[in-house]
Amino acid sequence: MASSWVNLAEQLGSDLHLELTGPGSRRSALTRALRDAVSDGRLASGTRLPPYRSLAADLGLARNTVADAYAELVAEGWLVARQGSGTRVAARIEPVRVPRVPKETPARPAPAAHNLRQGQPDVASFPRSAWLAATRRALTAAPNEAFGPGDPRGRRELRRALAEYLARARGVRTTPDRIVVCSGFAHALRLLFGGRVLRGPLAVESYGLAFHRAVLESASVRTVPLTLDEHGARTAELGSLTGVRAALLTPAHQFPTGGPLPPERRVTLVDWARTCGGLILEDDYDGEFRYDREPVGAVQGLDPERVVYIGSISKSLSPALRLGWMVLPEHLVAPVLTAKGEREAWASVADQLTLADFIGSGHYDRHIRRMRQRYRARRDRLVAALAAHAPHIVPTGIAAGLHAVLRLPPGTERSVVKAAAWQSIALDGLADFRHPSAAMPAHDGLVVGYAAPPDHGYGPALEALCRILPPAGPDAGAVLRQK
Amino acid sequence: MASSWVNLAEQLGSDLHLELTGPGSRRSALTRALRDAVSDGRLASGTRLPPYRSLAADLGLARNTVADAYAELVAEGWLVARQGSGTRVAARIEPVRVPRVPKETPARPAPAAHNLRQGQPDVASFPRSAWLAATRRALTAAPNEAFGPGDPRGRRELRRALAEYLARARGVRTTPDRIVVCSGFAHALRLLFGGRVLRGPLAVESYGLAFHRAVLESASVRTVPLTLDEHGARTAELGSLTGVRAALLTPAHQFPTGGPLPPERRVTLVDWARTCGGLILEDDYDGEFRYDREPVGAVQGLDPERVVYIGSISKSLSPALRLGWMVLPEHLVAPVLTAKGEREAWASVADQLTLADFIGSGHYDRHIRRMRQRYRARRDRLVAALAAHAPHIVPTGIAAGLHAVLRLPPGTERSVVKAAAWQSIALDGLADFRHPSAAMPAHDGLVVGYAAPPDHGYGPALEALCRILPPAGPDAGAVLRQK
Repeated sequence: MASSWVNLAEQLGSDLHLELTGPGSRRSALTRALRDAVSDGRLASGTRLPPYRSLAADLGLARNTVADAYAELVAEGWLVARQGSGTRVAARIEPVRVPRVPKETPARPAPAAHNLRQGQPDVASFPRSAWLAATRRALTAAPNEAFGPGDPRGRRELRRALAEYLARARGVRTTPDRIVVCSGFAHALRLLFGGRVLRGPLAVESYGLAFHRAVLESASVRTVPLTLDEHGARTAELGSLTGVRAALLTPAHQFPTGGPLPPERRVTLVDWARTCGGLILEDDYDGEFRYDREPVGAVQGLDPERVVYIGSISKSLSPALRLGWMVLPEHLVAPVLTAKGEREAWASVADQLTLADFIGSGHYDRHIRRMRQRYRARRDRLVAALAAHAPHIVPTGIAAGLHAVLRLPPGTERSVVKAAAWQSIALDGLADFRHPSAAMPAHDGLVVGYAAPPDHGYGPALEALCRILPPAGPDAGAVLRQK
Repeated sequence: MASSWVNLAEQLGSDLHLELTGPGSRRSALTRALRDAVSDGRLASGTRLPPYRSLAADLGLARNTVADAYAELVAEGWLVARQGSGTRVAARIEPVRVPRVPKETPARPAPAAHNLRQGQPDVASFPRSAWLAATRRALTAAPNEAFGPGDPRGRRELRRALAEYLARARGVRTTPDRIVVCSGFAHALRLLFGGRVLRGPLAVESYGLAFHRAVLESASVRTVPLTLDEHGARTAELGSLTGVRAALLTPAHQFPTGGPLPPERRVTLVDWARTCGGLILEDDYDGEFRYDREPVGAVQGLDPERVVYIGSISKSLSPALRLGWMVLPEHLVAPVLTAKGEREAWASVADQLTLADFIGSGHYDRHIRRMRQRYRARRDRLVAALAAHAPHIVPTGIAAGLHAVLRLPPGTERSVVKAAAWQSIALDGLADFRHPSAAMPAHDGLVVGYAAPPDHGYGPALEALCRILPPAGPDAGAVLRQK
């Protein structure tokens, strides 16, 4: 519609331009223009509007168009029409402080120059065209009912693809009907504990993601830390924790300190669950990314009735699609679905169907293989950079995952983390991951994610990292403290 | 990989076939085959496996391949290797009851022959090709960071498109930074009340969705019913409700009984919020679908600092994509983002970007117009069918939305709802929507959704509906009770 405007100065005794623009009918445009004029105070409360006939003549509109616009604004409460006294702007309409020109407030801190934060995959490697092709196939093939209210378990196509994939790639033993799709690991925790399917206290590893502990805390779940040593979580401690009937672990790759849980500790873990009727929550957050040999299969396969296996595509594809899954013991399927509710399927059906096709057509396997090569190359560059520039700093936990832990001399972590912030390097110190009531000795260290930087930024990020590491020598801590 | 198998009868003293199939390397296939054999009990606990050299020879594999497979299964806890006594199946491995062939359990009741349930859009009308084209444009144009961890407010592209669209189509006054994307109305309620941004008691309409009351109850929010009359919610009652500082209403189209909230009641509502420092939650669930005149604009426009405006695409496009939004007063933005958490963006970025493009390119407006015509035609057929076959049954609330309310003679609702179930017609009686402590008189009625059936099924659904309606006459209730 062409823009047209009228100056209502004569009719109103004050200067007012009405501009009729935008898509839709002239009536819509007039309604919008009048509403805006009232809302921003140009037409004040109590102002009498011109009779619709004269406004129609001024604007070159049909009388009905103006009459309809007035009626709409009366229905919405902007105007008041009274027999004999015409149409006025309603009382109590206050001009509003919302700026008319949308302005974004700067709500987030500027991103760091070098992003070595753990937990983020390489966003530049998201397989856009393969994903798009899968979306096209999936949405074209989907039955109409897919666009209606969803099954709270998630789409059957995806649960079938996952059952097959997880058996093949992760040694998980399940059927599609024991899989419940969710939007990620935290959503799984919320369903299990917020939904009162499980109750605390919950044994956790002494080092883990603070965000997960926060989710558990908000569901009033007390967490009890298990000691970690160089072989991972001491699962033998579980038997002595009174009242603890559930344990959350990262058996494929202890987060964030490294290595897979050794075989005898896996057996101890499963034995504990069998003996006390307990449950193991297996967080398989990056199980696919093991570099020097095949990935270690899931604990879930050892006893599917004692393990809730939880995975997602947040590390393997993208955290932005919000897709994860739980593989449940049979007796937990119904309670989890009750907690989830019939009405809220959460994960987008478009993405669910796309992922089902992506897995079924082999693109997921190909993507994992490609990313494994890329991440291994990045890890190797990190190891080489340290060997060349800081040979006294030993990277650990490098056999798998998207991050390494750099052990630091005692007493140096805080200074190094501060130096990182000054140099605009985003990374975390080990202390950020430590359970507040952990009894084991604290180690100084950096958790360095190597997946997030773009290719051209990785070299400079490694150089920046090497520059902030403490110098070699027995008294590195003292040297740093003097700086 | 070609399938190959070996019979281990000689080596094990029992009959065992190992079949090497599936994608991936021969080592993966062997690992999988051995793991399966242990997990389903064919290789029992304690069984000694053949030395890797002889198994390699039998299978025609390299020795290293078999040695690696053994080592992996040891790492996972399936096998145990001891110096001098070879490799055995670990103790405590129990054969598992998970059926090896995936079988879906029938978990949901068979769908009804005629679906006249309210709240479901026409799934056959989902604009697949326009949506796919928007996905293609959106994913192609997206910056790499879109595939990383998301902004908890939602994508900026979508918030901008929504601010423009909601201003234009719904009279909402906002800036993009006051919009928070969520996954639907229930998620909004969970964030506001479960996240302790707001507290009860909360005034609600005496008739509304039981599911929403359940969400509020689970967040320990007490709800206080407002009386409805033929003009909608009596907002004047709000002033007399002690302790109530928040009210949830459906001003565009009272759910489920009909009509928009009249102008003077809108003003009363906003006045109440201003006087007591209260907050209005505006559930604009189907505001776009008004048939006989332009949609009534949102109450939010009257006072953006007193209204939380909540909408979604569940009725306008599909409930399966899980996309909704809140338009917040300025002072609630930060608390809602805190409740949402930095880590959980919930709504899929692919869908968010697609919807932003879909709105910006005008496809959303076109889809709404097309659906408005389709739904109006369906409503007209419902009205015509009733006029022809049950002229004594008056449909109400038909000016807007995807459903109508059929008023029934007193005392007949339960029998009619039962009859519907027998005839395999999915619909709800008005009683299902009534607040348990509502004080107003109860009305008998049916809530009939006309959007859900496929085109070819709509005529038969209307016929089936007319057959179960009570006959005319002053004592229809008595007649039905005798049946």
